[in-house]
Amino acid sequence: MVIRYPNGKLYESAPKIETKKESAKSQSVAKETNKRAVNYSNRGKSLEDDLNETNMFYLHRNMANIHKKPVPIQIVKVDYPARSAAVIKEAYFRTPSTTDYNGVWNGYYIDFEAKETDSKTSFPLKNIHPHQMDHMHSVTIQRGVAFFIVRFSTLNRNFVISYHVVAKWFSAMGEGGRKSIPIAVFEQDAIEISEGYVPRLDYLQAVKKLIANYNVCESEEKQRDGK
Amino acid sequence: MVIRYPNGKLYESAPKIETKKESAKSQSVAKETNKRAVNYSNRGKSLEDDLNETNMFYLHRNMANIHKKPVPIQIVKVDYPARSAAVIKEAYFRTPSTTDYNGVWNGYYIDFEAKETDSKTSFPLKNIHPHQMDHMHSVTIQRGVAFFIVRFSTLNRNFVISYHVVAKWFSAMGEGGRKSIPIAVFEQDAIEISEGYVPRLDYLQAVKKLIANYNVCESEEKQRDGK
Repeated sequence: MVIRYPNGKLYESAPKIETKKESAKSQSVAKETNKRAVNYSNRGKSLEDDLNETNMFYLHRNMANIHKKPVPIQIVKVDYPARSAAVIKEAYFRTPSTTDYNGVWNGYYIDFEAKETDSKTSFPLKNIHPHQMDHMHSVTIQRGVAFFIVRFSTLNRNFVISYHVVAKWFSAMGEGGRKSIPIAVFEQDAIEISEGYVPRLDYLQAVKKLIANYNVCESEEKQRDGK
Repeated sequence: MVIRYPNGKLYESAPKIETKKESAKSQSVAKETNKRAVNYSNRGKSLEDDLNETNMFYLHRNMANIHKKPVPIQIVKVDYPARSAAVIKEAYFRTPSTTDYNGVWNGYYIDFEAKETDSKTSFPLKNIHPHQMDHMHSVTIQRGVAFFIVRFSTLNRNFVISYHVVAKWFSAMGEGGRKSIPIAVFEQDAIEISEGYVPRLDYLQAVKKLIANYNVCESEEKQRDGK
């Protein structure tokens, strides 16, 4: 394991085998490094950057296969210059019909949307489009695991919050309820992602807890046996 | 149920409840319509068009949630004209790092690539990129269901062929074996997709057979119980 600090660079590779003691030690080193380096190495790093790095980490270690989907583009005009690659000369951004991330972990279909907020007190629901909720509803009907990863960027806190929890607040808003989810709800009903460097945002640990909490396994076995 | 022919239009909606007799009748109508209309309604319809229509059909009936991923684009220059949508003025096509389609059906992660060939006798392996094979390998490690949908367009035949079967031929090619998979292999080891109009290409039926054949269910339960 190579730890490089305080230049803010990440570990070169994660330790494969560690004793408990070593692990605890390297964690405390990581935390110190974190405090010092967070303003440096995270400078300009978005939630998306962190997730892409984390997904590559999972992929290369056969821990999960989860990708961000490309941004959908409506292509209008393409030039094909001789002896060069095709150049798109006119195109427009389209509204995505699904969420940004999906993939597979251990037989589970994983589907999520990542959102950041500057607020220190609550997550504004205007960040979520109704079509994303529709998509996630459809995913849960097909027994996929749907959730949001929400970053309170000012607080440097990240949560995995189940689609089901968000859906309750989303429909309550439609009936005149509040327009944001208080952070206390995250603290109680969501799962906080532990800080770390390798991977940068180890959300899979939180997702495992989410699946265990909702007893997805149990209900799955039952439903599958019934088919 | 509205059947419109011989103008080549699709049924307006699929029948929700049918007796066996009615079903058989509507099938034979569909087959006749098919013969008459295939050169008309399918004119210019690619495998991709058929799959997109089929996926919409599945989605709207809560049968599956499977989407084609957008084509990945490297955006270089964007204009933001006042009071109009942003216009992409320079962008390039990037090589996709995954397959084209993925989603979820009944708790299974579904991942596939769609390929067409004009050949009447075999499917050329040059259609498949090594990175797609790597991706599918990773998917199967995570216990997802990975396969190809191959259309022999001249023959108007479509098959669902498991990643595992293709992988055997792919690695044999690497060792000097033949560069294509004979259609006889498809007839024996793949599952032919039945023709139809609603949905246009009902590949989910074939995928269900694929899963049953490979006993994915059984091995899944075992692995899951062991965890």
